[in-house]
This record gives sequence, structure tokens and C-alpha cells, in this order.
Amino acid sequence: MNLDQATPEQLQQWEAELANQYQSLQDQSLNLDLTRGKPSAEQLNLSDALDGILDGDYRAADGTDVRNYGGLDGIQEAKQFAADVLQVNTSEVLVGGNSSLTLMFQTVLFAHEFGLQGADSAWKTQGKVKFLCPVPGYDRHFTVCEQLGIDMVTVPMLSTGPDMDQVEAMIKADPQIVGMWCVPKYSNPTGVVYSDETVERIAQLANIANPYFRVFWDNAYAVHDLVENPPELANIMDACRKHNTEDSVLQFASTSKITHAGSGVCFMAASPANLAGFQQVLASCTIGPDKVNQLRHARLLPDMTALRAHMKKHAAIIQPRFNSVLENLSSAFDGTGLGTWETPVGGYFISFDTLPGCAQAVVKLAADAGVKLTPAGATFPYGKDPQDRNIRLAPTVPTVEEVDQAMKVFEVCVKLASVRSKLAA
Amino acid sequence: MNLDQATPEQLQQWEAELANQYQSLQDQSLNLDLTRGKPSAEQLNLSDALDGILDGDYRAADGTDVRNYGGLDGIQEAKQFAADVLQVNTSEVLVGGNSSLTLMFQTVLFAHEFGLQGADSAWKTQGKVKFLCPVPGYDRHFTVCEQLGIDMVTVPMLSTGPDMDQVEAMIKADPQIVGMWCVPKYSNPTGVVYSDETVERIAQLANIANPYFRVFWDNAYAVHDLVENPPELANIMDACRKHNTEDSVLQFASTSKITHAGSGVCFMAASPANLAGFQQVLASCTIGPDKVNQLRHARLLPDMTALRAHMKKHAAIIQPRFNSVLENLSSAFDGTGLGTWETPVGGYFISFDTLPGCAQAVVKLAADAGVKLTPAGATFPYGKDPQDRNIRLAPTVPTVEEVDQAMKVFEVCVKLASVRSKLAA
Repeated sequence: MNLDQATPEQLQQWEAELANQYQSLQDQSLNLDLTRGKPSAEQLNLSDALDGILDGDYRAADGTDVRNYGGLDGIQEAKQFAADVLQVNTSEVLVGGNSSLTLMFQTVLFAHEFGLQGADSAWKTQGKVKFLCPVPGYDRHFTVCEQLGIDMVTVPMLSTGPDMDQVEAMIKADPQIVGMWCVPKYSNPTGVVYSDETVERIAQLANIANPYFRVFWDNAYAVHDLVENPPELANIMDACRKHNTEDSVLQFASTSKITHAGSGVCFMAASPANLAGFQQVLASCTIGPDKVNQLRHARLLPDMTALRAHMKKHAAIIQPRFNSVLENLSSAFDGTGLGTWETPVGGYFISFDTLPGCAQAVVKLAADAGVKLTPAGATFPYGKDPQDRNIRLAPTVPTVEEVDQAMKVFEVCVKLASVRSKLAA
Repeated sequence: MNLDQATPEQLQQWEAELANQYQSLQDQSLNLDLTRGKPSAEQLNLSDALDGILDGDYRAADGTDVRNYGGLDGIQEAKQFAADVLQVNTSEVLVGGNSSLTLMFQTVLFAHEFGLQGADSAWKTQGKVKFLCPVPGYDRHFTVCEQLGIDMVTVPMLSTGPDMDQVEAMIKADPQIVGMWCVPKYSNPTGVVYSDETVERIAQLANIANPYFRVFWDNAYAVHDLVENPPELANIMDACRKHNTEDSVLQFASTSKITHAGSGVCFMAASPANLAGFQQVLASCTIGPDKVNQLRHARLLPDMTALRAHMKKHAAIIQPRFNSVLENLSSAFDGTGLGTWETPVGGYFISFDTLPGCAQAVVKLAADAGVKLTPAGATFPYGKDPQDRNIRLAPTVPTVEEVDQAMKVFEVCVKLASVRSKLAA
């Protein structure tokens, strides 16, 4: 099926055949869902020991009674866990509540309104400011900017991470750019891992950027590998140390996709100066995080060996679902030119680019055949994909059989939408 | 000891005697602490069943898997708990994480920056705005305003609550007043319960105030009674319903001083319009609260009968400490004119007013004799008590014997500071 060389008659014939196939899929009254980037119940079961794990012992290693108030930046063993995951020093971490999104929102808010280095550093003093958003990206990052009135400018994701030539050119040209969103490992949604060169260049952006420029390094999938010998993400903080730019990067992660998604522990890593600025404001919002839950997590996952063993169990559950998506894409679209995608070896998503102008049509066709997909455009700021191409596939929640069924529907929808688009052109 | 009628010689003699007593107290090298409004370990033990209470059953009553993402406003059984405590409908509550201070900070922030009823309602569009702060009050309320650049104007607390004549006059005269802090039951720190008339008048403030005026009703001690047949606080939401002012009051509470102080569950009650406005912004900060912990709390305290029985156990621990403070104050200062205080029958604090200009001296004398007190001024905005009179006593953490010892020191410090102040006048 090569659309470019097809005659109108050929296209018509394909359309008829695909419409026929689509009709029989519709007749099956499916009810499948590839929208949700969340763990399945089977994955959540892996951490059910959390409740009750303290066995009446509510003392942290340093003697702190974790039940009481206090401790704005978390308990020592939770800091150690965070430092291990993000490969930084414990003096560079703060451990919070159940949501890294909250930490990110707070950090953007505090930097914008109050400044992380005193009132003069508040972004709002500089008028309307902007964030660089590699696209496709994570919708909740974009929502933070939108809520806080921060403009977003996009830069394309490559297989090595954001297009750094463009990033550097834009940052040099526009001092109103004060931030940049990054999901450096198994990026949401394309699944790529930033290359060493990309990390190295990001660590040097502070040298050409607004003095209060910050990279928001959302390492949500730091330990979420699906293969043996997974790709290693270069250490951004080490790169920053080399270039004296430690203040320019703020790292975030959580256990949301390690233990229980809604009741995990989040953390950030940053230079001591950034942490101090952050905590100064944080102290007016809270007396401290839930230390009991931090201690539960430290007991469940006492070291990196335990964590790696735990993540292998996740991988065993997720991998067949990823394989199903990737095998279906490959057998349906290899060599057709109807779509492009990466082959992630970790994370939660596979991202598919249709021919230009087809994504919305595919999502609608799929929905009408009982397969829910993430709304087209969701991976772009303001929900607008200018080329209407990107679709995010999230296969963790359905069973392998359901993923396979859904992908068969997806195949027909992509082909049908592509042929119709060609016919209409 | 009547300072007003004493001769200079008499004062000199008292000073010498008290200095002598003070010296022998200092020689005891005490190390006591009445600063902390937090539960003792004995109180925390009452809720140790929380960890493990789910016994592997992570399903809420409606079938929700509480381990996963989602549910911005909390699970149904936690809402029922919140609604019972605050005596509102479950449709009027939102249940959050571990900190009601966070909910209050967020509410003030959202109302100021984004508006609870659309962008036009944002306080910041009205220039510099103000909050009414009954004093003495809770320092963390004042810190929220200070952090957000909201001016604070004070109004005195009476034994019936804030001086409502002054409150009404100030609100009528100044449309820049957009908020008011209230701790209506066992007020922090005076311990008074707002009278029915005060509640009724607060419910009508919206009729004379800025259209976006909000009362921040921090009912932190709603169920924290120390006596049988405790005073009942009138239902503010019912009063608002009567006057069609439901949008003007936002209520807050938590289980921080019911279960484990740092890992409880917080909640707010508000009109559906306010809740909708709040959640619209909240959705950009978080995917949802820790529902597992909400379920733990609902299992530990399934209804008001269980809650009341639980609070009686707290009362049995706290009451002897309160009695010690109150008996010491009474025997030391009744009829002396050296200080005034309320006699709270619930909450966490007893508030003592010295003669004008003596509070800082008392706190310093006590510290130098090994008894830590909350810094003088802490109960006023910006930490400044204009008359330098108020001292907050927090007796829950020390043992009864320690409270008694500390109060004996306090007595001598108050008397010595008072005599010296008179001598210096």
C-alpha cells in the first residue's frame, strides 16, 4: 500500500476495503482503552506490602518520630533513596508528598512569583516570560505553564532528545525564555533517551540564557527500564558541575510508577541555593510532608538492589504489552510511509506520528470502533498539534490480548484515515 | 502583691526576693518546652493501628482502587468523615493531603492570582488587598498573607470571638479587605469559642464587604474537647444559607491533631461554586490526593461515634496538662492584676496577657531559666505585638510534672518582669 503512487481508482478501492474492515470491527462492539499512563492493578499489587510494613515502628533511622509534625525536606532514608535514583548527593534533594507534579507546579510558581534567589530573581519582574517545550511532550507540564500565564514555544523532539541546535538558537535570541521542560529518559511520549551530547549541551544552556533560566528535568522514568542493559542517561548534575551551572537544573521524580501511583513519594534534586530558595517559600505552605509514608517506602525499597529487583517485576508485566504495540505497528506500517514511531525500551508510552492531518481522524475512527485513544493534540501546548500527526499510545492498563485487539483496530483506522486524506487532497 | 499601690521600697524588696527565687530556679538547670502545639507521643500512639489497617483491601466502598491515580477531591468515605466533622453536606467538601495549611495557602493563592469565580474575581486585579486578622492569632495564617503580599489589619479577640463591632466597621469602610482569618472553636491561642451571635454576624459580612470577600474558617479544633458537654460552635454554613452568603465562607480542618500529626488527612468545606473554582486550578497542581491514607483514616474512624470515643482518649491525656497550667495561673495571679487569660475547655493552647511591655522580658527570663516559650509577638502579624503582652502556652508535649515545673518558673518570671517594669516606669 503506497499511497503516493496509487491511482485514484486504487485509492477508492482501498477505501472501500478498509471501510469494510472497519465496519466489521465496529460490529464487535469493543470497549478498549489505550489512554491512561498509569500502572495496572497487577503492577500495583507488587507494592501491597507498604500498608503495615512499619509493624508499629514509626522511628526513622535517626530517631525521628515520623508520626509528628516537622521536617520540611523529608527524612534521611527517603533522601538517600531519592539521591540514589537521581544520582546526586543527599544534600541536593528534598522529599515531598505524593505528587511530583505538585513539586513542579510549586517550583514554577515560586520561581515566577517570588524568585528562587530572592525577590529580584522572580520571573514576573521581567514581564511575560516563556518556556521552551519539546514536542510532542507531557500535557501536564504544559498545563502548569498555561495556568501560570507563561507562554510556551515549541521545539521538535529528535531521537536524541530536543533539537539542540534550535534550542540554543532560540535561547540565545530570546531572553524571555526562562524555562524548559524535559523528560530525559523514556520521554513522554516518544520514549527516547536523551543522548550524552544532548545532556552535555543542556548543562551549558545557562551560559547563553536568561540569568534565572531553569531546566525542569522531569526524570519520571529514571528506573523504568524494560530491557536488560538499558540505555544510560548521562548525569545532568555532573555535567552542570563541570560547567559551573548547577543552579540551572531542577530535577524531579517520584515513586508513582514504582509503588502505588496515587500514594507514592515525590522528590526533587537541585543545588543547595535552589533548595534554600524553594524551602523558604515552601515553609509558608506546609509544616512538612507525610514522613510516615516516606518511611514505608524506605522500608519497602531499602536500596538500589531492592529497587532494581522490584522494577524487573514491573518490566515483566509491561513488556508484553509494549511488544504487542510495537509488533503490530511494525507488521502494519513498516515500509508503508503511513506512520513513524520510536521503539522505546522503557517508560509508559509509544508515540505514533500519522501522515500530516490524520491524527484527529484516527482518534475519532478508533473511538467510534470502541477504542479510546488519548485525544490528538494532547501532547502539544494548548492541545494543538499544528500538523495533526501525533498520537500517544499507553498500553499498560489493558491486558495483552486487549492491547493486541486495540492495535488491530488502530491499524485499520490509520490506513482508512490516510487513504481518505489522500482522496480528499 | 499589688504593684499599683506599692511604694518604691516595696517594689525594690519584691524585686530582690523574686530575683533570689529566679536564681534558685536557674540553678536547677531545667530544660522544659512549652512552645509546641503538637500532640505528645502518647497521643500519637492512639492511632498506631493506621499502618496496616487496610489488611490488603485497597478498595474504597464504591469500588475505587485507591492505590491508583485520580479523584481530585477525595474518596467518598473521607468526604463523609469531613462532612460529619464540619456539619455540612458531602457535596460541599474536598479532601486533600496531609496539611490543611497547604489547602489554606492554595485557597488564598488561587483566590488572589486566578480568582475562585473566574479571572475577574482574582483579588490581584484590585491592587493591594488586605486580610482582617483577629489577634492574638495563629502565626502560620499570618505567614500565608505575608508570603503572598497581602496586607494584614488586626482586630482584637474578645471572649466571644473577634470584636464584631470593629470587624463590621472596618469591612464597611475598606473594600480592600478581601479576607478574614478565623479559628472559631478553641481559638489559637486564646481558646475561646465564637459565640452564636458572632457566628451569625460573620455569616452576614458578605452583605457589606468586597464582592469577593472570603472568611477563612480554620476549624482546626472542631472535635478537640476536653470536657463533657463541651460548648457547641454554631454552624456557619447553616447561618450562611439563611443569609444567602454561602460563597463567603471557606472552612478547613484536618486529622492532624486527631491521628498522626504529620500524616493525617486535611479537608475543606465550601459552596459548590467555590469548590469548582478551587478544583479548576488544583487540577493543574496535582493528579489527586493520597487516597490510600484517606481510606486508612476512614477505616480507623468510620463514624462520629468512633471519632468521639477516640477524642475522649486524647482529652484524658491533655486535660491534666491544661489543669496544671490553669491551676498554676490561678494560684499565682488571681486578683493580682499581673495577667489575664481565658480558661479554654478544648484545643491546644492557653494564652496569657502580661502587663503591657512585659511579654518579651518574660520569655527571655524563662528561656534563661531553661523554659522555652513561644517567642513573644508570634501571635501577631509580622511577629509584632504592639503592646508586648501576649504569650502562648502549649502544654501538650511535656509530662504533667514538667508542665507544673515550667509553670512555677513562668510565675516567677512574670512577677519579676512586672516588678522590674514598674520600677523602670
